[in-house]
Amino acid sequence: MQTLKVAAIQNQPEFGNIKANLHDLIGLLPPECDLAVLPELCATGYQFRDRDELRSMAEIIAPDQEPGPITSRLTDVASASGTTIIAGVAELAAGSSENGLEDTSEKIFNSSVLIRPDGTREIYRKIHLFLDEKKIFDAGDLGFSVVEACGIKVGMMICFDWIFPEAARTLALMGAQVLAHPSNLVLPYCPEAMITRSLENRVFSLTANRIGREMRSDSPLEFIGLSQVVSPSGQLMARLGNNETGAATATINIVETDKKITAANDIFADRRPQYYR
Amino acid sequence: MQTLKVAAIQNQPEFGNIKANLHDLIGLLPPECDLAVLPELCATGYQFRDRDELRSMAEIIAPDQEPGPITSRLTDVASASGTTIIAGVAELAAGSSENGLEDTSEKIFNSSVLIRPDGTREIYRKIHLFLDEKKIFDAGDLGFSVVEACGIKVGMMICFDWIFPEAARTLALMGAQVLAHPSNLVLPYCPEAMITRSLENRVFSLTANRIGREMRSDSPLEFIGLSQVVSPSGQLMARLGNNETGAATATINIVETDKKITAANDIFADRRPQYYR
Repeated sequence: MQTLKVAAIQNQPEFGNIKANLHDLIGLLPPECDLAVLPELCATGYQFRDRDELRSMAEIIAPDQEPGPITSRLTDVASASGTTIIAGVAELAAGSSENGLEDTSEKIFNSSVLIRPDGTREIYRKIHLFLDEKKIFDAGDLGFSVVEACGIKVGMMICFDWIFPEAARTLALMGAQVLAHPSNLVLPYCPEAMITRSLENRVFSLTANRIGREMRSDSPLEFIGLSQVVSPSGQLMARLGNNETGAATATINIVETDKKITAANDIFADRRPQYYR
Repeated sequence: MQTLKVAAIQNQPEFGNIKANLHDLIGLLPPECDLAVLPELCATGYQFRDRDELRSMAEIIAPDQEPGPITSRLTDVASASGTTIIAGVAELAAGSSENGLEDTSEKIFNSSVLIRPDGTREIYRKIHLFLDEKKIFDAGDLGFSVVEACGIKVGMMICFDWIFPEAARTLALMGAQVLAHPSNLVLPYCPEAMITRSLENRVFSLTANRIGREMRSDSPLEFIGLSQVVSPSGQLMARLGNNETGAATATINIVETDKKITAANDIFADRRPQYYR
């Protein structure tokens, strides 16, 4: 299947009200959708006061373990609807072991989980943490990966990863055709920058952001919405406003992720890594 | 000196009329300017019919040799005005030797030359060639470099280099505070993408483009103008239209190239290269 219906979902979660937030998210999923991306921390809210509060809402999402309530509920929805769902979830995990030694200490990651209609899952743990996330989350320890889902190759990145060109580039070089980008954006630059990310890598990008405010600290946050779908040629296929909930939807044709931008230029073959840092 | 007056010059060259084109370019330089960037192939025009025609207008610009007429004339202007000038020039050169062996074959590069008021020069040879440039130019063989000029660190890239995030990234990681970007843009995406390049690297960028048309082959070219100066926070400090000549000027403060975008985020220190391709 080369043509897919995709959606970037934009919600307005109420902090801590997981049940209501999930209900809203599920209601925003369009029918007959192949791939839906939900925002970062989409069912919990964003601004946890401390690690203890974060732990109280974090859940297991790792593919080889029994998942927590958010992941379970979304797995039911994926199964019933046939939609592959990607959602930002606070992940409770034992530490992984980059050095081969077992590490059993608790870790909590700002993760995204990809759930296929058949119930199988993939995860991504946010590599680049933003601001106060550094105080409560552990930095992602699994690297970037590209996975098969709904007949295409999907790469996951989360919110602030956008500012590092290496994130989208790494995923594209690994074969990603679609960048799934759950976000909780507060800075204004990302929606335009993701057009550049799509262009420079000739990939589709789905940025799913939230709206609304959180005022749980001295630094209230206002989320900018503007969830969008961008084509490999930098066309804005759909974009929501900054004060509405909904789904930015588009029908995408995967053949457009071909890397030829002119008769003589293949933007991957034209790379000259010997000159790059 | 931390504050500089900079300019991106936008001209409308007549193909092959080097003398008139130079006269126009020099007339567009603003007074008391510290750094001025001129377009790619700014004095010759762009659409050479073949290698022979290109050779007839290419000139020596290498720092250790007697330069050709365009470079000589701009050196006089730099000396008289105190302006550091960066200009796109077709460079005639003996082949360099990446492998340590001498290569005396003729090469012609799509280059930029940086000329200081004291008459010293630096060069950059375009790494990523666009479309028909591949038929007549040799691909740059010197890599990217960052040089000191007018009290700051300048990195040069040319036109189509913009689509490869590694170009601006490499220059910024090497210490560039300003990206000097002579261009002959025909695709519409670059001006917005250069905002992302400035943001993601926290550097100023000066894109100097031309306007007008060239119809010297079956594929007429229309150049889009929009020469601009962008700040490290992605602010468009100056931008020209797509049908005017002139200078996009700004006063820039180099301290803004600091990499801290939040109290907890230094976008260079936050990089995690172990996960990048």
